Amino acid sequence: MRRVLLRVAYDGTDFHGWQYQPNARSVEGELNIALCKLTGEDIVVIGASRTDAGVHGLDNIAVFDTESTIPGEKFAYALNTILPADVKVQKSYDVDADFHPRKRKTSKTYGYRIYQAKQPNPVKDRYAYYVNYDLNVEAMKEAARYLIGEHDFKSFASVHTQALTTVRTIYNVEVKNQDGDIVIEVTGNGFLYNMVRIIAGTLIEIGKGRWEPEYIKTMIQETDRIVAGPTAPACGLMLLKIDLEE
Amino acid sequence: MRRVLLRVAYDGTDFHGWQYQPNARSVEGELNIALCKLTGEDIVVIGASRTDAGVHGLDNIAVFDTESTIPGEKFAYALNTILPADVKVQKSYDVDADFHPRKRKTSKTYGYRIYQAKQPNPVKDRYAYYVNYDLNVEAMKEAARYLIGEHDFKSFASVHTQALTTVRTIYNVEVKNQDGDIVIEVTGNGFLYNMVRIIAGTLIEIGKGRWEPEYIKTMIQETDRIVAGPTAPACGLMLLKIDLEE
Repeated sequence: MRRVLLRVAYDGTDFHGWQYQPNARSVEGELNIALCKLTGEDIVVIGASRTDAGVHGLDNIAVFDTESTIPGEKFAYALNTILPADVKVQKSYDVDADFHPRKRKTSKTYGYRIYQAKQPNPVKDRYAYYVNYDLNVEAMKEAARYLIGEHDFKSFASVHTQALTTVRTIYNVEVKNQDGDIVIEVTGNGFLYNMVRIIAGTLIEIGKGRWEPEYIKTMIQETDRIVAGPTAPACGLMLLKIDLEE
Repeated sequence: MRRVLLRVAYDGTDFHGWQYQPNARSVEGELNIALCKLTGEDIVVIGASRTDAGVHGLDNIAVFDTESTIPGEKFAYALNTILPADVKVQKSYDVDADFHPRKRKTSKTYGYRIYQAKQPNPVKDRYAYYVNYDLNVEAMKEAARYLIGEHDFKSFASVHTQALTTVRTIYNVEVKNQDGDIVIEVTGNGFLYNMVRIIAGTLIEIGKGRWEPEYIKTMIQETDRIVAGPTAPACGLMLLKIDLEE
């Protein structure tokens, strides 16, 4: 038995999220089907980030065990001939048999894209969230800085979170202008259920002037979901990168 | 009677092109339906660029005549509440009653996006053409220069073109690197049927090394579709801008 790692990109629009569900289309489900067709084995992948319905992935990780003799780097080519157009393996390689993508130390980077315009734009809507009001980007940048560090992010997690602890470390949050859009880029050691979308929704409210940037500090202290902003829509979110720390 | 102009953006994926067809979904068709619902009049729009099936538009133009008293700039808002998600009006305003978008002098800019990678990427596929081989961008840049100017572009038009003359002026062609992708940006006074996609397909062949850049000169001289490269897929093409010259 050997373990193989897949770096996976997907357009989340038509998926009910990463995680396998018996009656809905998921990225994991499509990978399992393709691996079963390719190897004849009953394979179930383990993913690194269980992204929500509608969230996109540029670089998620899945691992699986197999008896197959296909060289590690060939799985990408072979699986892509079977997989549907909205999920494709970018790279594949062998890893140690005890490699577990969620038990390992990783650094994950998500990007949340917002476009500000008078009218919605169909060629932007798939990968960005449309707002028809002005945003104070400087205020958003200032607010973002208060999120950096190790904190109890309970206020920024869905009330449905099942995490044992709501303490996480955010290494960096950047609010930047990219091709005329606003992109919130967040890097951390892990994220709670809906956490990046709640961070984005909160920074958008601050950009609108609803709260002062420093109010983030109070939000963190309160450890209560009710004090933070709304959960921004899934379409604007993309998992950009997972770094495996040695 | 007054004439109103619409600046229209659309995701071409699910359209059989811009032009109205009785049994297929078109951008014009959706605009006509929305205008009819809004005004109660039997309105048929006239478009500036009849983009092909699958081609995207960031800034196409449609004009129509109406008895409605809705202020010009309000049409965008009103129509967007009726239009489907993949076509939205970006701006609307009154124009002279004799304004005709295809009889007027305009400068149009198209962008053709290509991404080069080992594996296809689902979050790029909608707006870019995937190639899994290396491209010599310098050779493409050199070839592009030979296209600039007034030429008979018959070699670069579909054999199904119905144009009276195949002479057009290309003001500029630029091959540039954009976010890691290759974008061919072409500006001209008008384009023949499939012309930008044939230019893109030809530059790609030159990037692959099939022809020397100077061979473009011979292609133009031959005025025969058979000498130019293949028609690159629609998904990579976007109408970026229409400038109305005074």
